[in-house]
Amino acid sequence: MWTVKVVGVSVLAVSVTVELLNWLRRRYKKRKPLNEVLFFPSEVACVEHLLSPSAPCYCALPHGVDTSFSRLLRHVLSASSSLDLCVFAFSNTDLCRAVLSLRKRGVVIRVLSDKDYIAINGSQIGPLRKAGICVRSDGGAVYMHHKFALVDGSLLISGSLNWTLTAVQANMENLIVTMEPELVRPFVQEFNRLWELSDPARTLSNGVQTELERTAGHD
Amino acid sequence: MWTVKVVGVSVLAVSVTVELLNWLRRRYKKRKPLNEVLFFPSEVACVEHLLSPSAPCYCALPHGVDTSFSRLLRHVLSASSSLDLCVFAFSNTDLCRAVLSLRKRGVVIRVLSDKDYIAINGSQIGPLRKAGICVRSDGGAVYMHHKFALVDGSLLISGSLNWTLTAVQANMENLIVTMEPELVRPFVQEFNRLWELSDPARTLSNGVQTELERTAGHD
Repeated sequence: MWTVKVVGVSVLAVSVTVELLNWLRRRYKKRKPLNEVLFFPSEVACVEHLLSPSAPCYCALPHGVDTSFSRLLRHVLSASSSLDLCVFAFSNTDLCRAVLSLRKRGVVIRVLSDKDYIAINGSQIGPLRKAGICVRSDGGAVYMHHKFALVDGSLLISGSLNWTLTAVQANMENLIVTMEPELVRPFVQEFNRLWELSDPARTLSNGVQTELERTAGHD
Repeated sequence: MWTVKVVGVSVLAVSVTVELLNWLRRRYKKRKPLNEVLFFPSEVACVEHLLSPSAPCYCALPHGVDTSFSRLLRHVLSASSSLDLCVFAFSNTDLCRAVLSLRKRGVVIRVLSDKDYIAINGSQIGPLRKAGICVRSDGGAVYMHHKFALVDGSLLISGSLNWTLTAVQANMENLIVTMEPELVRPFVQEFNRLWELSDPARTLSNGVQTELERTAGHD
């Protein structure tokens, strides 16, 4: 009788412990970070519902279709605090509209682009600058060939795709969209490094210093 | 006395269960997949110890330095069964030597490259073809602009970096190296899709069909 009671209580204790540990595991289990891959060329479809949600659209393109490009736009538009963009070529007008709408919403935007590509016909860097967005380019490298964006410092969009219409609609391209901290963190650090490196004040102050040094040499 | 015994046995049962569950968790815990980011331009250093490990090198470059490029080379050379390469521009001779050494080791290699870039001066596609490596290019897209490699179907290397010397030594570039299945799987599927799409036999059979249809139309 005594043995039966002890075994019974032990089984109960083990069951309660297992249940409790399972509950704790489920409760505090780390959620798997977002990992998504987008391939291009993207199917051509209307994206006005993303860029101007309040205005109805009657264009001839298919509506309400989920494409690689609409997914890219959604990820960019999901920014609530910051967008750091580091892209070689930026001529896609829909992506430019998306960035401008973020700016209107008060999202802090920093853009790094290639020094040569900035001035090219069709580049959307001009409209971004006109809207007061800070754009920098570095003169050190042959090409600033990156194509990545950081949304709110926690979502990375990176791959072969430049922000151009040809890349989106005609080329074979890829983009990785991830919130994996081991991948996002190095890109955040690299963006901040390149941003500081491309600070015009830095170049100017270097210039002034050189001028002062030259003058001192003549004294 | 009876209560003390029951409590004692229950505590023992709970302790044993907790220890057992912890052991099982450690034993069968999923290992976190490799995630690494490489930035370029890479520091210039000798990589002969990776490409010709048996031959001593007396070149003037720094030796034994771990750089972004040496890490890229190590990942490529780690292939034991297959290398699927899908890259817009391939003119880097060290990367070509790495691929050729894999070929000698019996690794199955498939290369997809851009149709226009293949014929450009300095392209390493010629030496690969001469070594019997199967290279395909697709005529459908404006540019086959991908820059990714799949090592043994489980390690993905993807980013902005073309396999050229300028990209490695002069440009600002990035590469994500990952074994995360959610990222690797779509690239494996896309490579296989593009490989089938670029099958010359497919184009030829389509051509023959069109010729037959045309002849039939004239009958």
